[in-house]
Amino acid sequence: MINFKITKKSKKSNARIGVLSTPHGSIETPSYVNVATQAVVKTFTSEDIKDSGGQILIANTYHLHIRPGEDAIKKHGGIHQFMNWNGPIMTDSGGFQVFSLGFGKDYGTGKILKQKSSEKIVSGSQPKAVKITEQGVEFRSYIDGKKLFLGPAESIKIQEKIGADIIFAFDECTSPLADHEYNARALERTQRWLQTCIKVKKSDQALYGIVQGGKFKDLRIASARYTTAQAVDGFGIGGEFGDSTTTMKSMLHTVLKELPEQKPRHLLGIGHVKDVETVIKEGVDTFDCITPTHYARHGYAFVIYKSKWTKLNLNNKKYLLSKEPIDKNCDCFTCKNYTRGYIHHLLRAYEITPLRLLSIHNVYAFNKYVENLRGAIKKGAL
Amino acid sequence: MINFKITKKSKKSNARIGVLSTPHGSIETPSYVNVATQAVVKTFTSEDIKDSGGQILIANTYHLHIRPGEDAIKKHGGIHQFMNWNGPIMTDSGGFQVFSLGFGKDYGTGKILKQKSSEKIVSGSQPKAVKITEQGVEFRSYIDGKKLFLGPAESIKIQEKIGADIIFAFDECTSPLADHEYNARALERTQRWLQTCIKVKKSDQALYGIVQGGKFKDLRIASARYTTAQAVDGFGIGGEFGDSTTTMKSMLHTVLKELPEQKPRHLLGIGHVKDVETVIKEGVDTFDCITPTHYARHGYAFVIYKSKWTKLNLNNKKYLLSKEPIDKNCDCFTCKNYTRGYIHHLLRAYEITPLRLLSIHNVYAFNKYVENLRGAIKKGAL
Repeated sequence: MINFKITKKSKKSNARIGVLSTPHGSIETPSYVNVATQAVVKTFTSEDIKDSGGQILIANTYHLHIRPGEDAIKKHGGIHQFMNWNGPIMTDSGGFQVFSLGFGKDYGTGKILKQKSSEKIVSGSQPKAVKITEQGVEFRSYIDGKKLFLGPAESIKIQEKIGADIIFAFDECTSPLADHEYNARALERTQRWLQTCIKVKKSDQALYGIVQGGKFKDLRIASARYTTAQAVDGFGIGGEFGDSTTTMKSMLHTVLKELPEQKPRHLLGIGHVKDVETVIKEGVDTFDCITPTHYARHGYAFVIYKSKWTKLNLNNKKYLLSKEPIDKNCDCFTCKNYTRGYIHHLLRAYEITPLRLLSIHNVYAFNKYVENLRGAIKKGAL
Repeated sequence: MINFKITKKSKKSNARIGVLSTPHGSIETPSYVNVATQAVVKTFTSEDIKDSGGQILIANTYHLHIRPGEDAIKKHGGIHQFMNWNGPIMTDSGGFQVFSLGFGKDYGTGKILKQKSSEKIVSGSQPKAVKITEQGVEFRSYIDGKKLFLGPAESIKIQEKIGADIIFAFDECTSPLADHEYNARALERTQRWLQTCIKVKKSDQALYGIVQGGKFKDLRIASARYTTAQAVDGFGIGGEFGDSTTTMKSMLHTVLKELPEQKPRHLLGIGHVKDVETVIKEGVDTFDCITPTHYARHGYAFVIYKSKWTKLNLNNKKYLLSKEPIDKNCDCFTCKNYTRGYIHHLLRAYEITPLRLLSIHNVYAFNKYVENLRGAIKKGAL
């Protein structure tokens, strides 16, 4: 079980400071949730997560079900013991992955659609690579092509074996191409699936229901109200809100207004570091984001320059002779010990070390940034 | 400059305990020299080297000349500052790499020849991919195909800019296919190159001359005697000795008998962990070996089982449910924190983290093993 206590509310925005307590310790919110999809933050040990200011992780039901399998994790004593991380952990339900894989195959798109003008919006289309039924989703393993099935009951049973502190209900994450009619039907199914999740769950893990509804305001409001009325411990906000920060902000505003203040809200997978302040101001308590580690593995370092996030591409030859750290104001292990020039050299030499060095910096900088935003809320400045 | 002091000599073998002092600290010998080819121990930070019991590193002139270039390293304040490692460093001269690249291209072979019965021994052959002249070697960059030239004068000038504590003379490392006649001519050239190295060197870095001569005893003896007579601070023993531990041991014995006791001897690149005890017993003070990190990156962990080195292949599915550490008697970071099962999972999931975890274990185990051999010499048991 979890406990959530709001310790301060901003007068300037909907931002709030809270303490989220779990069987594996408490975290202060708003907080970045470090992404550990396959029970590891990419390039990190669990000690690295702590050293980079990480408070809480999110792992993935879909990926862990496929490999190594929930039974293996259970035999290791659960995910905390398996990965030697004694802090709080969430698991996403796998819904998003099942669908995004389907859409990705059909349209070459992820959660956020980069729609080409030549493409038609396909009304009501389901992804072709997966088959959705009332019971759940049939799909194929990306490892061996084996037919697999994931539905609300399966997802909960898997998440119980994995053993995170907070688990998510299984939802249908609709395609950015799907129209109102399709989204309405999908939402009803997601609501029935939430009932199944609640019924099936035997553990005392906290369950978050997921608000869906795509980019349609009426569906988002209906979803928020429906989920609020169920026995859930918190809320996930999933799916696509539109393609700009403005539409995202407006949709978040609409959704969060409908949710009970005293329960925690998690925004599933934000795409851009620049959106963090916006979502916190709207009242989001936790959010995950692969950007810091993903960009690190491609040679990019995040730095705040003139109060804005900017990316340094350390693959660029201009850094070769630089004796500066990535960010001279940063206290991370990487900035305290290594120069831009050395990291540039290691990247060009195809070494493994710089991927971790950059991940450490980016995750540290990101956690620090959120910590500073918490400080601003406490001071009444956000 | 370096200082070398023998503190204990074994009565049971030619093994000896020594202290090798450099401008960047002292190390106890015999010692494993951690391989940092491109100014990094693969997957490690410099802190990891220390944490894994590393005392001293060897980087590579050939690789660092090609990328990032010695001028860049000099502008960073030398290799110690560049890679943030304040302990002793050696640089190999690049001779071996220039030639091995040539032979590798011609015959698909490295230092140790796995000769196919269908292959003819090509008398006196030079590698086709490189061109050897009295001045040095013309070869092509593996990055952009650009023509490059490395000779004794170039190698020393590059090594001065890199700034290691101990540098090596530029030598011709002959092909395992080369006959006595070719080896004799190559050796004479290597001897003239040593003269050039001594003449060109302006720094107070320690210079090791390299004993060559291939698998020919008379040439090895001639080379050892010639090198001993020159103004060198220590000795490298390079090239191929034959294809078994027995022939290696016998050739090492022959060579080391000819070298002055009071100067340090470095064996360049031993191929097998099982040979460590043998070479130490013959009186080798330092040696490098890529095996611990190379195998780690392929999923193998070295463990001593019934007094013999053995490799666990952690890619093997049988480790999935193992809650044991790699080695329950090991005190390394990896064994203290992670299970075989977790490392197996991470390997199968193509994560980066296990490559470092296994490298930490292997390097720690290797350094610990050599430390134990030092202990045995001190106790008079080796």
